[in-house]
Amino acid sequence: MTSPEAREETVLSAVAERRETVNEAISESLPIAEPERLYEASRYLLDAGGKRLRPTVLLAVAESLAEEAHQTADYRSFPDLSGEEIDIMSAAVSVEVIQSFTLIHDDIMDDDDLRRGVPAVHREYDLETAILAGDTLYSKAFEIMLETGAPAERSVEALDVLANTCTQICEGQSLDVEFETRTDVLPEEYLRMVEQKTAVLYAASAALPAILLGADEETVDALYGYGLDVGRAFQIQDDVLDLTVPSEQLGKQRGSDLVENKQTLITLHARKQGVDVDSLVGTDDVDAVTEAEIDEAVEALEAAGSIDYAKETAQELVETGKDRLEVLPENDARRLLEQIADYLIERGH
Amino acid sequence: MTSPEAREETVLSAVAERRETVNEAISESLPIAEPERLYEASRYLLDAGGKRLRPTVLLAVAESLAEEAHQTADYRSFPDLSGEEIDIMSAAVSVEVIQSFTLIHDDIMDDDDLRRGVPAVHREYDLETAILAGDTLYSKAFEIMLETGAPAERSVEALDVLANTCTQICEGQSLDVEFETRTDVLPEEYLRMVEQKTAVLYAASAALPAILLGADEETVDALYGYGLDVGRAFQIQDDVLDLTVPSEQLGKQRGSDLVENKQTLITLHARKQGVDVDSLVGTDDVDAVTEAEIDEAVEALEAAGSIDYAKETAQELVETGKDRLEVLPENDARRLLEQIADYLIERGH
Repeated sequence: MTSPEAREETVLSAVAERRETVNEAISESLPIAEPERLYEASRYLLDAGGKRLRPTVLLAVAESLAEEAHQTADYRSFPDLSGEEIDIMSAAVSVEVIQSFTLIHDDIMDDDDLRRGVPAVHREYDLETAILAGDTLYSKAFEIMLETGAPAERSVEALDVLANTCTQICEGQSLDVEFETRTDVLPEEYLRMVEQKTAVLYAASAALPAILLGADEETVDALYGYGLDVGRAFQIQDDVLDLTVPSEQLGKQRGSDLVENKQTLITLHARKQGVDVDSLVGTDDVDAVTEAEIDEAVEALEAAGSIDYAKETAQELVETGKDRLEVLPENDARRLLEQIADYLIERGH
Repeated sequence: MTSPEAREETVLSAVAERRETVNEAISESLPIAEPERLYEASRYLLDAGGKRLRPTVLLAVAESLAEEAHQTADYRSFPDLSGEEIDIMSAAVSVEVIQSFTLIHDDIMDDDDLRRGVPAVHREYDLETAILAGDTLYSKAFEIMLETGAPAERSVEALDVLANTCTQICEGQSLDVEFETRTDVLPEEYLRMVEQKTAVLYAASAALPAILLGADEETVDALYGYGLDVGRAFQIQDDVLDLTVPSEQLGKQRGSDLVENKQTLITLHARKQGVDVDSLVGTDDVDAVTEAEIDEAVEALEAAGSIDYAKETAQELVETGKDRLEVLPENDARRLLEQIADYLIERGH
């Protein structure tokens, strides 16, 4: 048995090892071209940080399928399953670019001021530039995905997955907004929203390398399922952390989801148990709420079993997700993907 | 010699003939799915009207290449150059969907209230929904372009053109904003901005059917050039009309570009002739400007030869554009494409 702490260290160092290569590739694929201000704004969040978890998942699936060790892999000339070389790094950059586009537009929509410790793009620049920077990253992601050099049939399938992923992210974001004004959201509806808003990009990250390297449909589908499962678990864990981690460690007010009336699996469960969720916190201003109020609310949710319910759901999703990895050869990269799944629900922030 | 009036009638009736089929195809490719509010907002501008000029260019190029008459053509099962059937209508819908996405986001950026006689999407709905509706159309355009059933190599090329077109539109929009704060813009820079912001989507509309039907590179390039030329001419004519057409016919204040300090080929030429363009109109409020002020400004621009210069530039672009159509077989569809080019600079609004 590996301890959660040891696992966290393994995962974070595996992610860090790949991060530098990914960051270099981002600079290559997305240079600061003319008009400079537009490209600077487009690169702003990408350069501000980020773990590069999705590119890591993508590269690890590629490593596992091709039985290539990370230490010696050349991701720009990476062997597909018939021994032809493709540029799998372009696919990794493409999903990170999509992720960055959604963050820029989400921050506008949620009117968030901070992201990754720096001002959101619409604060650092302006609304116009932020919309346009997101739109630029959007098409750039498609251009970059077309640079893998994979056979045309596979590129077409990869682009179809990418386009469909973006559509679902938009649908998920739209549902998230809609749910804020509804009190009758079902847990299934919530999980569907989380699947679209968050999990599909993990699913794409896991399935795209299989498509591009020429794996069979069963493998592609299983990997897509892995991404959906761990992506949903990741979001549910986020909801748990919002209630259980001290504000200073969280980087924002603990319980802010409750204050802002955001629906989560936890509140939906509590509502079903008869908890008057809307009265748990008296204010909807995060700056006005007290730690004591949050403590009391968390106690009520714990008493209703809602936090345990969310943790168990996330745990089940991670187990199913890991099982799906059986389509991969047994190797270090597959073990890393299993550890990433565990890490996503064990992480403290 | 055909008179401008007769040509306008021919073009508008040719466009109208194809519009109904295009509108039907839009409903098929972009149904009001869940979440309904998102898809209603996405369809809002598409349903509010629009000539469908870009889809008409795309379908006319296809008709000309395949020597198919519009009256009997089945665009959903359209013969490519080797006799295989492809769905060319999906490509026509895709470019119109891209056009609609850019209008929604442009209206937010320019803070425009009206479009096609109805409130802009961010006014009819809200900012969040408008951003998201544009983002949804963006990925939907890629999904729809993947539905042509063309061989994978051609689909990959078509998607590359589409993605690159979107990137250029963003770059052009960014330059347009940048130019508002610069007084040293060169006419070449202006033409480059117009090329990116407006002409590339005409270029894509003309080149995509050639790519998808399997035409050779020379044909694809010539048609792309046709679109760039007539697209730039179209924008320059817009700038001329803004000064020369009465407000009631224009649907907005005549001379609003001058009032809002927008750079056009006309003002750039005038500046080079020593005209103090920034002092031509005393106000930057379109509601405060008088017709007499505009008359005087137009007289100054006419005296400097700037309006004639713009008209001549547009005329030259249209002539070069029409010459490029020599790669097409001589038939009714090619003649329609020639007439569309002429119409774009003869139209009165």
